[in-house]
Amino acid sequence: MTSANNPTSYLSSIHHDGSKRYVLSPGGTDLHMGDEVTIRLRAAVDAPIERILLRTCPDGEQFFAEMHIEESQSSTTCTWWSAKLRLNMPLTSYRFLLFTTDGAWWYNGSGPHRHVPTDAEDFRLLAEYAAPAWVRESVFYQIFPDRFADGDPASNVRSGEFEYQGVKSQARAWGEAQSNWPAAMVEFYGGDLQGVEQNLDYLTDLGINAIYFNPIFTAYSNHRYDVLDYYKVDPHLGGDAALISLRHATAQRGIRFILDIVPNHAGVEHPWFKSALEDPNAPTADFFTFHKHPDEYESWLGVRSLPKLNYRSQKLRETMYAGTDSIFRHWLKAPYAVDGWRVDVANMLARHGKDQLEAEVWAGIRQAVKEENPSAYLLGENFFDSSLQLQGDNLDASMNYFGFTNPIGYWLNHFEVNQHAEPRNVQSSVAWSTQALVDSWQASRAAIPWIIACQQFNLLGSHDLPRILFMLGQDQSRNRLAVAFLLTYVGVPCIYYGDEIGMSGNSALDARNCMEWDSSKWDTDLRAYYQTLIKLRRTSPALIDGGFQVLLAEENILAYLRDTDEEQIIVVGNRGPTEYPAGPLPVALGGIAEGTQFRELFTCITSTVINGNLPLPSLPAGVQIWQTIS
Amino acid sequence: MTSANNPTSYLSSIHHDGSKRYVLSPGGTDLHMGDEVTIRLRAAVDAPIERILLRTCPDGEQFFAEMHIEESQSSTTCTWWSAKLRLNMPLTSYRFLLFTTDGAWWYNGSGPHRHVPTDAEDFRLLAEYAAPAWVRESVFYQIFPDRFADGDPASNVRSGEFEYQGVKSQARAWGEAQSNWPAAMVEFYGGDLQGVEQNLDYLTDLGINAIYFNPIFTAYSNHRYDVLDYYKVDPHLGGDAALISLRHATAQRGIRFILDIVPNHAGVEHPWFKSALEDPNAPTADFFTFHKHPDEYESWLGVRSLPKLNYRSQKLRETMYAGTDSIFRHWLKAPYAVDGWRVDVANMLARHGKDQLEAEVWAGIRQAVKEENPSAYLLGENFFDSSLQLQGDNLDASMNYFGFTNPIGYWLNHFEVNQHAEPRNVQSSVAWSTQALVDSWQASRAAIPWIIACQQFNLLGSHDLPRILFMLGQDQSRNRLAVAFLLTYVGVPCIYYGDEIGMSGNSALDARNCMEWDSSKWDTDLRAYYQTLIKLRRTSPALIDGGFQVLLAEENILAYLRDTDEEQIIVVGNRGPTEYPAGPLPVALGGIAEGTQFRELFTCITSTVINGNLPLPSLPAGVQIWQTIS
Repeated sequence: MTSANNPTSYLSSIHHDGSKRYVLSPGGTDLHMGDEVTIRLRAAVDAPIERILLRTCPDGEQFFAEMHIEESQSSTTCTWWSAKLRLNMPLTSYRFLLFTTDGAWWYNGSGPHRHVPTDAEDFRLLAEYAAPAWVRESVFYQIFPDRFADGDPASNVRSGEFEYQGVKSQARAWGEAQSNWPAAMVEFYGGDLQGVEQNLDYLTDLGINAIYFNPIFTAYSNHRYDVLDYYKVDPHLGGDAALISLRHATAQRGIRFILDIVPNHAGVEHPWFKSALEDPNAPTADFFTFHKHPDEYESWLGVRSLPKLNYRSQKLRETMYAGTDSIFRHWLKAPYAVDGWRVDVANMLARHGKDQLEAEVWAGIRQAVKEENPSAYLLGENFFDSSLQLQGDNLDASMNYFGFTNPIGYWLNHFEVNQHAEPRNVQSSVAWSTQALVDSWQASRAAIPWIIACQQFNLLGSHDLPRILFMLGQDQSRNRLAVAFLLTYVGVPCIYYGDEIGMSGNSALDARNCMEWDSSKWDTDLRAYYQTLIKLRRTSPALIDGGFQVLLAEENILAYLRDTDEEQIIVVGNRGPTEYPAGPLPVALGGIAEGTQFRELFTCITSTVINGNLPLPSLPAGVQIWQTIS
Repeated sequence: MTSANNPTSYLSSIHHDGSKRYVLSPGGTDLHMGDEVTIRLRAAVDAPIERILLRTCPDGEQFFAEMHIEESQSSTTCTWWSAKLRLNMPLTSYRFLLFTTDGAWWYNGSGPHRHVPTDAEDFRLLAEYAAPAWVRESVFYQIFPDRFADGDPASNVRSGEFEYQGVKSQARAWGEAQSNWPAAMVEFYGGDLQGVEQNLDYLTDLGINAIYFNPIFTAYSNHRYDVLDYYKVDPHLGGDAALISLRHATAQRGIRFILDIVPNHAGVEHPWFKSALEDPNAPTADFFTFHKHPDEYESWLGVRSLPKLNYRSQKLRETMYAGTDSIFRHWLKAPYAVDGWRVDVANMLARHGKDQLEAEVWAGIRQAVKEENPSAYLLGENFFDSSLQLQGDNLDASMNYFGFTNPIGYWLNHFEVNQHAEPRNVQSSVAWSTQALVDSWQASRAAIPWIIACQQFNLLGSHDLPRILFMLGQDQSRNRLAVAFLLTYVGVPCIYYGDEIGMSGNSALDARNCMEWDSSKWDTDLRAYYQTLIKLRRTSPALIDGGFQVLLAEENILAYLRDTDEEQIIVVGNRGPTEYPAGPLPVALGGIAEGTQFRELFTCITSTVINGNLPLPSLPAGVQIWQTIS
């Protein structure tokens, strides 16, 4: 029901997204050229809408189709409008034009607009995209290999075994404190792939079904982003044999995994680079960019130990991805058969000054990867707006710092920006509004096709961030709220190892501390909380790829709906500090009918929709998750 | 001065755009790789800004630079902030991050935002773009050749001279009423290039210095979009010789001209198509797309007389643009040496279903055109959002229906959408708000680099629209207001022949009526009004490429500032019907200092800024244009 006080409050009841409730397709989620889909829009039954046109732009020319009310689906709560749309292009953009008693409104991915918007926030459908369906049904777990579990002490790096960048390798006991940089870089705790395999019960018990591994190829540092040999699993991690063994063991449990690859730069000790340094005419000399041989060369953010690879070189392209046994292809093939790639600094790859080669290089990488395995997951690291890479012809997803992690941090903690150079850290003392969180999330979704939004790699922690608990000042309520958002927001959740047992630490370095295996030191309540939410995420159609609509955003409260025809889930979060009093949550704008019954996940309290509202008990800082009772 | 009542009113004083007051470059407007430019932002002196960071993303990685207050430039009215920015990429995007006592704000091309925006509306700078400087100093005049002036009756089409699409050609007397479609298509009034040459005095007297000609290549219809021979000026228009003569005559007067080219489709009678119809193996058979030879072929919006050209054909690409005497190149060479191309249906070119080849085809067209003449103007027809084509690697500009013409029509007349299919015309009965006009203009500017916005081809009429006077219900005040916006808004104005003397007509067909040469039938006041504004536009630095900032948008009033360091122009428009009472216009938010004196263009009244406001006399429906007194 819309408010008489605010003549345009009906606008919040207008909803469309790319989920299957709003885009009906004959063949399910995978769309094909020539498919005729049905585009649906929902609005409050009393919204003063006179007419709706569906606006597309086939082959560049604007086209309007009249939408009609679905009498059979509409109810006393909401009206459903629909129109047919034939997909004649790989990427079809569309938006809506509503004629109301209050004038014309355009409605696109960023909401209703009075003015004529550009096409940038149109809804988008991909034909012939072939989304890897397993991804959206996954809950990932990120493992930093040296720090998860030591399965074979015999293969551990020994102190003084090698020297790197002037620092000698150090073997450390599990759980010992790390040194500072740069010594920390060559401290090894003995974690390996065997250790992961030996602890698969732990992961299965937690409930996850996919793993993202930080780099495992041979390298000197413990993070292994300074690759020495792209074709060899580091012997200290168990070598190729351990990966093959792990592949079998995980496959038996239905656990997928992806590896981390660094095509942007090599380690300074990589033979490619050593040859290039020694001889300007070496076969791999043009894999790098020398401004003045051998002293001045292009490197990752000026870090001399990470010389940047040069994709003007066709031979490098062959070696990295295009050739039949290229690096990208090699590990996708049996017996390794990894399920996809997480690509390091995907934002910077093949970009350097006048050479902005990213479009062609990424097209080549995508082609190679999908040729080897059509359902491989191609995930890119990008801390910023990566929407240009998320249009169906490049990445399948990015690590969603931009569209998920950062906005949550800004809302629950404070707004800040960081960088490697001055000014290093700039913070705002004024709290972010809930609307800013909603708008940030929305802007990032609006820029990409829905099917890709459902694959976006959401995270609260990684090897590059301080632990989430530390970020939130050890506030348990806010931490649980953040975890609930991770497991219920649009996209694929990834849990950083140890977050589930309450590991903390005050820097990105501390985030790489050893996994705590002494269960007496675990926050078992938190772990149970994770388990409950992981189970919900993996079994709920509404959370896997249901729609998303904000129901309420005010001061410290955010409530949103995830919906399919068969299930609706309402998440209500209070960042605190004050308790949100018991009272009605407006849900009619989400099309939820009178009398619909919900049950709260953690308390099992039930509640029934009346007068367009769901009566809620009071909510201290934290979260309630309401699921329809089927 | 900002208002104490509204704590964020200072936001309207924050301004940056790509004009030379806000982007200082060592080499003037043309930017080069490696240039260090100074990026400046202006804000009210009492804006509670603590710190500003300039945000860029070199090679994909976010980077912040601290901005500093320019003590020497700041005043009691405004504060100038600046930072250096080195251009290391062809396209550099940037935005601002403001830390204020009121929290953090992002400021990009669409204004201030609380949430983190995507990069889509970042400001943009182009290095090595080489803008055709003459374009932004031009006022164009559009001529439909058959209807402007008959210079050589001997060459006129005779009645029955040919038959086209089953209709015989008809010679008509100058000024006679046209028939309806389809007969109208082959009615000829005898206008030709000699007629244009004989009337250059008229054009010079009006003040324009550039002409856009509708098609002049040999064709059967009078609009000539159904080309028969791309290499031959229609003999009925005077043939190649008349074009050469016109080239000399216009060059002497400093008048440039561009021609209209149709690379998207050929006329059904074009020899390429006739051969292709006759023989599926003809050399030009693959210039077209036959679904079933010969009956079913791809055509422009299904119009069978306009078969669509197929750019999968490399031979077509050679012929149209890539080859040494390609069609695009041929007319750019002496002796024709035309100054650029207006490309018909640029939005649809090389796009067809799964083949979306526009990026590579346009890159090829741009390369060919600029090789022949680096300062040629490459203008595309596009009624919709063309921002993807306006990033420096494709078009120099589009016909700005989307970002200029339509929003004005929606504001002065009513909002409506039209198309060739059902639903053909849908109107809203509720007037557009002034804010919707401002937001539409802003959204279209925000999506493209400033240098390109200054080249956008603004128009109120064309051969494809009913006359502007008719559109505005013959309302003289609104017409003058629209004309004032045309001549003072960001971009290049184009006047459709006859609009300057008050020609009207109730359809797109009527818009092609013969030019009225009987001066007793002219609205001479209107013509003088045009002359005054054209002169101002051509001589005012602020209008050629000065900044743009909205000062006031409320109910029926829109006031905006165009500014350079040496000149500020304030345009105040009232769409009526009620008179806007005399009173103060806030101008301090535009950084205009106390005591600045302005003179109004039409009345010569002067006014002086006091307390941050410019006192204005009352304004009936229409416009005031205030120029600083130098």
